[in-house]
Amino acid sequence: MTTETRLERGRRMLDRIDGQAGQAVIDALQDIAPDFADYLFEYPFGDIMSRPGLGLREREIATVAALCALGTAENQLRVHIQAALNCGVSRDEIVEILMQMSVYAGFPAALNGLMVAKQVFSQGEHGGER
Amino acid sequence: MTTETRLERGRRMLDRIDGQAGQAVIDALQDIAPDFADYLFEYPFGDIMSRPGLGLREREIATVAALCALGTAENQLRVHIQAALNCGVSRDEIVEILMQMSVYAGFPAALNGLMVAKQVFSQGEHGGER
Amino acid sequence: MTTETRLERGRRMLDRIDGQAGQAVIDALQDIAPDFADYLFEYPFGDIMSRPGLGLREREIATVAALCALGTAENQLRVHIQAALNCGVSRDEIVEILMQMSVYAGFPAALNGLMVAKQVFSQGEHGGER
Amino acid sequence: MTTETRLERGRRMLDRIDGQAGQAVIDALQDIAPDFADYLFEYPFGDIMSRPGLGLREREIATVAALCALGTAENQLRVHIQAALNCGVSRDEIVEILMQMSVYAGFPAALNGLMVAKQVFSQGEHGGER
Amino acid sequence: MTTETRLERGRRMLDRIDGQAGQAVIDALQDIAPDFADYLFEYPFGDIMSRPGLGLREREIATVAALCALGTAENQLRVHIQAALNCGVSRDEIVEILMQMSVYAGFPAALNGLMVAKQVFSQGEHGGER
Amino acid sequence: MTTETRLERGRRMLDRIDGQAGQAVIDALQDIAPDFADYLFEYPFGDIMSRPGLGLREREIATVAALCALGTAENQLRVHIQAALNCGVSRDEIVEILMQMSVYAGFPAALNGLMVAKQVFSQGEHGGER
Repeated sequence: MTTETRLERGRRMLDRIDGQAGQAVIDALQDIAPDFADYLFEYPFGDIMSRPGLGLREREIATVAALCALGTAENQLRVHIQAALNCGVSRDEIVEILMQMSVYAGFPAALNGLMVAKQVFSQGEHGGER
Repeated sequence: MTTETRLERGRRMLDRIDGQAGQAVIDALQDIAPDFADYLFEYPFGDIMSRPGLGLREREIATVAALCALGTAENQLRVHIQAALNCGVSRDEIVEILMQMSVYAGFPAALNGLMVAKQVFSQGEHGGER
Repeated sequence: MTTETRLERGRRMLDRIDGQAGQAVIDALQDIAPDFADYLFEYPFGDIMSRPGLGLREREIATVAALCALGTAENQLRVHIQAALNCGVSRDEIVEILMQMSVYAGFPAALNGLMVAKQVFSQGEHGGER
Repeated sequence: MTTETRLERGRRMLDRIDGQAGQAVIDALQDIAPDFADYLFEYPFGDIMSRPGLGLREREIATVAALCALGTAENQLRVHIQAALNCGVSRDEIVEILMQMSVYAGFPAALNGLMVAKQVFSQGEHGGER
Repeated sequence: MTTETRLERGRRMLDRIDGQAGQAVIDALQDIAPDFADYLFEYPFGDIMSRPGLGLREREIATVAALCALGTAENQLRVHIQAALNCGVSRDEIVEILMQMSVYAGFPAALNGLMVAKQVFSQGEHGGER
Repeated sequence: MTTETRLERGRRMLDRIDGQAGQAVIDALQDIAPDFADYLFEYPFGDIMSRPGLGLREREIATVAALCALGTAENQLRVHIQAALNCGVSRDEIVEILMQMSVYAGFPAALNGLMVAKQVFSQGEHGGER
């Protein structure tokens, strides 16, 4: 890891965690804020998600919970429900996390999160999921 | 589990997960909304946290992440950082979860979460932690 | 009320308050989180909305205000504006509640709430709803 | 009402609804933003709370619900729980509204609201309430 | 400014700042809450945005930042990104403000804001921008 | 700027912008999350606040507006009101920004922001302000 730059490490992590959905976000940034695409590789993925102190599975559990509770980031929740699947969180576990958010952020937040998961799971069944 | 009521199961779960801090919340409700103390045992603990599809360790990771991201529930975050410790999440892992929230809810949310963790960890070192 | 279960009482309340819109939410949950449909009947409707201490009209005023202020639950605000109409809150009163939210949650929250009410009122005029 | 200015009407409404607590807020603004004290009389109280289409009792139910759900305005929730009492909402009804917020904004929001109500009710019992 | 009413001043300011997009909001309110259209002219534009103590350029920087951070007002963010352009904030500066929100409200808030800006800038290039 | 690391540049920016208050935050992190202190230097200050496309005065206007609107970061709002003063935003301008937030995030958010500014301005008058 010594000779790899933050940008390179972030690219590798983003590809592993988010796959195509993450790349689509990066692409969408190119003509408006290309530097922000670099920051997105570097800080969230190159710095934080690459740290050894917590497994990727646990990190995605935390992210799905937080985005569902906030209720202001539907697109990012969609990407991270797929990312959670990519990191070994099962569909049933994702449903449990989202249901649990009814306790901490209210039933509407949980319901909206479950509807996003329903979309993601449905796309996986009809191809398109890696 | 068949003959145990939701209230009984919730009381058992609250005691296991939150310990003294959870009981203090229940006590504080007695003279203003005693029925809400029952609901708090029943739905969050008797129904949700008792479900078999996700481990308590993972459930507390999700709760700590969500409460830190929301930023409106300092007291509950304090209780659940202790609950996460009780359920096998290490101090280092809690710090990782809170740091990660800088990505999804901003640096102030992460900073405020870390300051709450600092208080909880400090109380543990000077006794009072079960 | 003694022999009715929480689930049965919740189903009766949801049908009375939300009508078709509530049922559509329940249906959408069946293939992803059927247990959550039960919790939705039981806790919000069977426990909370069934309590005698506050009228349904007042409860829906509170819900419409809260969902408009939060700004993260457009679908649920839509359902509860209709529910408020079902519980005796007039269109003019709903508009007053939403306008008032400009004071407590800002003009954008109020504006977005009024646009949702405009949709709900318009659907009522063109049939399909009681 | 024809010859009364918005400022005069707002002052009269604030005095009727919030009493001493409202005046304390106005006083605290004098040396930092005296114009904002005028706006606070004029728009929320002179314009919105003075409108005839919804009763003051209903308006305070809506405000208590919204402030409890938002979770970012503890001082204002304190003022408006007292204001709700002043406008004919009973203690039991206030507790019902706050408990109901567990459904729409989560159990921490409801709990924090109930703790604020406990303070307000306690102050009333030991004098200080008008 | 002495003989101009708040409503007239607000109309003049809204036209100058928001242009067509602001007028579309006012039009949409006519059949549901025409009084709210007046309040929208009067308080935000006739009172606040007309105050001499801060330039319109600075006011729009503050508004774009706040709406991006809140994440609950996509339509209003769209209107105010255009308003910022109308008040002398450059495209590059708007991108900087939105990127900066990653620090204070998280990367999803910044990303969603940048996607709104991309839409607004794109519409400007293909005509329709004043 | 070529040979300066992100950490060094961030330290220099934090010192210039936030002064003692920023350093106090860094110090508080040392025994719980020292790596997060480095991230705080590097990303918000070394990367974002150091970018040439927007002046520091404008950046602090955006930050004060966002933190006031969010209402979940009182400590950070306190630090950035001082930072805004350090970067050439006048007391009157800060008051205007906070008052303006009543439009976009509600009167409670603006009021709470003004009370924080009152504290910061008062400390400045009695020494302690650099």
